[in-house]
Amino acid sequence: MNPHIAPVDLAKSYRLINHGPTVLVSARHGGVDNVMAAAWCCALDFAPPKLTVVLDKATATRALVEHSGMFVIQVPTAAQLQLTHQVGTLSLSTDAGKLATSGVQLFGMDGFDLPFVDGCAGWLACRLIPEPHNQQAYDLFIGEIVGAWSDTRVFSGGHWHFEDADPALRSLHYVAGGQFYAIGQALRVQESKE
Amino acid sequence: MNPHIAPVDLAKSYRLINHGPTVLVSARHGGVDNVMAAAWCCALDFAPPKLTVVLDKATATRALVEHSGMFVIQVPTAAQLQLTHQVGTLSLSTDAGKLATSGVQLFGMDGFDLPFVDGCAGWLACRLIPEPHNQQAYDLFIGEIVGAWSDTRVFSGGHWHFEDADPALRSLHYVAGGQFYAIGQALRVQESKE
Repeated sequence: MNPHIAPVDLAKSYRLINHGPTVLVSARHGGVDNVMAAAWCCALDFAPPKLTVVLDKATATRALVEHSGMFVIQVPTAAQLQLTHQVGTLSLSTDAGKLATSGVQLFGMDGFDLPFVDGCAGWLACRLIPEPHNQQAYDLFIGEIVGAWSDTRVFSGGHWHFEDADPALRSLHYVAGGQFYAIGQALRVQESKE
Repeated sequence: MNPHIAPVDLAKSYRLINHGPTVLVSARHGGVDNVMAAAWCCALDFAPPKLTVVLDKATATRALVEHSGMFVIQVPTAAQLQLTHQVGTLSLSTDAGKLATSGVQLFGMDGFDLPFVDGCAGWLACRLIPEPHNQQAYDLFIGEIVGAWSDTRVFSGGHWHFEDADPALRSLHYVAGGQFYAIGQALRVQESKE
């Protein structure tokens, strides 16, 4: 495993996605692993930490999530631009070699029977909170974050350090049609003197 | 009104928030206008376009949304860093002069009885889709986007043009504790030759 990976305090785990990155969703069921890209993933609560993610009915990953009740949300990096686009474009339903074609390498974390994508900047292991109406009507899935880790070269002490890290570790923010932005300049508010 | 503002095709309106910016939520009811910041806002569907936003029970804006059934999601800019942090910190419940203190200027759009925040890069007028369980259990609100506009200096033709625009027009991405990032470098995937 990447020696830079360290656990993130669950109370601060929402910060891995608070700035709105495009994420990779991975899941495992019945001996099948899959990974997809999702731009529509968002923090939902602090304690216990929760998030939402939209999983279209056409995705193979959705079925794995529904059957296993578990998934991983991970934050891919600028170095993974092509990988992110490919796992968001190819489908396991029609391309059994999708993960290999996309260059995805999976690894494990002790205590979690889940596929984690190597090379990301952060990982959130999630337990599905079943909400059948949301899932059916809106493709909206709610997960409780039960494990969190980061690449400490870019996220440590509960904060991102994009400004001091290799630009290849920056998070990706998708618009449409192959158009992404990397996260940019650090801005800090001036605290009032009151 | 800012002469650079133009309507955005509703089919492409999700692109104003697809890259995960922190947003401002505004609403109006009974002669009261309010604006709050929200990092937890996310696209939910393409057609009709929908989004989710998390509105804590402690916010005054939430009550305006619940009573009027309408709200605006807008994308503030790097130039609005302090304003965004202030409307996310002050509460109308305890500070009646919140909007003036924060430097918020409101304007109107024909056909919408809603307060729009001047100086933003994009605006999404939304109709609340009532989902009482989500609202009560998760503070999660679903809106259908019924009107969309952008500042054409930074979003036009259905795409952001951060790379060619004034950096002051870049979107803001909040982490925690006054730590924001502006959106950064444009990245484009290499289309496969297949």
